[in-house]
Amino acid sequence: MEDIISLSYGNGGTKTDSLIKKYLLPNFGNNLLNVLGDGALLNTSNEIAFSTDSFVIYPMFFPGGDIGKLSVCGTVNDLLMCGSIPKYLSLSFIIEEGFLINDFEKIVKSVALTAKEAGVQIVTGDTKVVDKGHGHGIYINTSGIGERIKGINLGKHRINPGDKVIVTGNCGDHGISVLCAREKLFEENLKSDCNPLNNVIYEILKFGDNVKILRDPTRGGVATTLNEFTEDTEICIELDENKIPVDKSIGSACDLLGLDPLYSANEGKAIAIVSAEVCDNVIENLKKIDISKDAAVIGQVTSFMPGKVILNTPYGGRKILNKLSYDMLPRIC
Amino acid sequence: MEDIISLSYGNGGTKTDSLIKKYLLPNFGNNLLNVLGDGALLNTSNEIAFSTDSFVIYPMFFPGGDIGKLSVCGTVNDLLMCGSIPKYLSLSFIIEEGFLINDFEKIVKSVALTAKEAGVQIVTGDTKVVDKGHGHGIYINTSGIGERIKGINLGKHRINPGDKVIVTGNCGDHGISVLCAREKLFEENLKSDCNPLNNVIYEILKFGDNVKILRDPTRGGVATTLNEFTEDTEICIELDENKIPVDKSIGSACDLLGLDPLYSANEGKAIAIVSAEVCDNVIENLKKIDISKDAAVIGQVTSFMPGKVILNTPYGGRKILNKLSYDMLPRIC
Repeated sequence: MEDIISLSYGNGGTKTDSLIKKYLLPNFGNNLLNVLGDGALLNTSNEIAFSTDSFVIYPMFFPGGDIGKLSVCGTVNDLLMCGSIPKYLSLSFIIEEGFLINDFEKIVKSVALTAKEAGVQIVTGDTKVVDKGHGHGIYINTSGIGERIKGINLGKHRINPGDKVIVTGNCGDHGISVLCAREKLFEENLKSDCNPLNNVIYEILKFGDNVKILRDPTRGGVATTLNEFTEDTEICIELDENKIPVDKSIGSACDLLGLDPLYSANEGKAIAIVSAEVCDNVIENLKKIDISKDAAVIGQVTSFMPGKVILNTPYGGRKILNKLSYDMLPRIC
Repeated sequence: MEDIISLSYGNGGTKTDSLIKKYLLPNFGNNLLNVLGDGALLNTSNEIAFSTDSFVIYPMFFPGGDIGKLSVCGTVNDLLMCGSIPKYLSLSFIIEEGFLINDFEKIVKSVALTAKEAGVQIVTGDTKVVDKGHGHGIYINTSGIGERIKGINLGKHRINPGDKVIVTGNCGDHGISVLCAREKLFEENLKSDCNPLNNVIYEILKFGDNVKILRDPTRGGVATTLNEFTEDTEICIELDENKIPVDKSIGSACDLLGLDPLYSANEGKAIAIVSAEVCDNVIENLKKIDISKDAAVIGQVTSFMPGKVILNTPYGGRKILNKLSYDMLPRIC
């Protein structure tokens, strides 16, 4: 077998077969994956969640992960945020001609490992190859199906003044780490938080109806996600700047580069809005899980300025946080 | 609003929002599409089909369709081939910086129109933008969920000697038309067959248990698809060359270019293997539908050369048809 992907690996014939049989089947082989069929037949509950994401991150290998791990985490986390248990993923590659088969294998193994960790099965897939100069190594789409957890009802309509805003860990790790990996800056100390959030979310969802909404603050970061909650509503979210957890190295990199961790992407964090009465218990439980040990209450829901997200600074100042509008970091997921 | 897509349209912030609100919502707006959420919550039956495809076709506008129409047809047809009724699609774009918003709008409208025709709802989506030189206009992934039709049981294990091989229309239209559009050859007479196959498949499935397997012969064409049926089995498929329907203009183009319509992709055709006793009735019914009016029985299942697909020529010759192994036409879907 050659050591690079040529166009014929995407023609649906014997070369595509060889890629499937040599690299995909050994890693994803399960009784549902019908690689030569048109799709998978699945048994699910009546109520499902369905989500999709394409991943174009550059560089494709970065501290803390790679495009394969990210592709699983991204969709798995989206399904979790809908209040569902992730069950099945599709996996679709767009590979640039000349891509190293070695790298393809590494990425496939990373997809397989992360899928196992997140408890999802890869059940259907697709491979396309584009001519050199019309891609950038590899792009991946995953779509996922989750089974909705009974009794969980999430949505911005459930957020009320008095509720608390929780972030499950340090803000902005993924975006800043990927930017620094790309530009080869401060590399030794920075690491993406890319991780499947199953255990973190299941812990939060134990609080049932007291959980109002969940969202993973990916592109656009915490500030943009919170604006999606307040937009077109009567609620206001007020953050306390000195309560926002930021990794020390990420904070220093942000200071030096003039970037804001609140607008930088996370790939292993959730924002949860919960009733005030369960807030401390949620935090206590989250701190017991390694990837949410830095969980913190960062603010509260008020009616101070309806529709707005406000940052209260330690010196008594106030700043309105809008959605991300300029292009801080392209291609970080 | 600008007339081209810049990188910031992919940052998940206000520009991404504007794209969603101006172009996607008006076309796909439905009570399930939660554009700013992480996924869609859906009600389905317990048994579903799940399929994915990425589309990288070039040129993106071609006679008979465009990448938008194709993206819907591809996944809808895959769901139909599983014996399911297509219900929900995800839609994910990878757009190259500098892409014309005008073209984006045309493609989105084409997606919407085809989805309506195929009876599917676009319920979740994603947009990524890659820097110039790292894409080729637009790539689209669709994944789809269908509800399995009760009492239908399809699979190669159900194919037996004596069964008949039906193709629902002329072979090879899509691949040859796209190649000719790309190279600007014989353009006036050629047209892709790109179409959702709902009515065609529902007609065939009326014959219940007499339908053994369905497949749409896309990349690799009819010859490759039939090999997937015979591979690792004891059955042989024998085709009668003079019964294979080929559009006259497509046939002439193939003759001139030295291409074989049996290896050229179709995007609006199905192969069905059915019991001999219903074969004539299936054909009779298919001929009443416009896009399957050229349906024909092209061969039969035998045990002559187990695992092989054989072409019987009108002059008494025999030729083994293998899977596509070389790269006839890259990027035709």
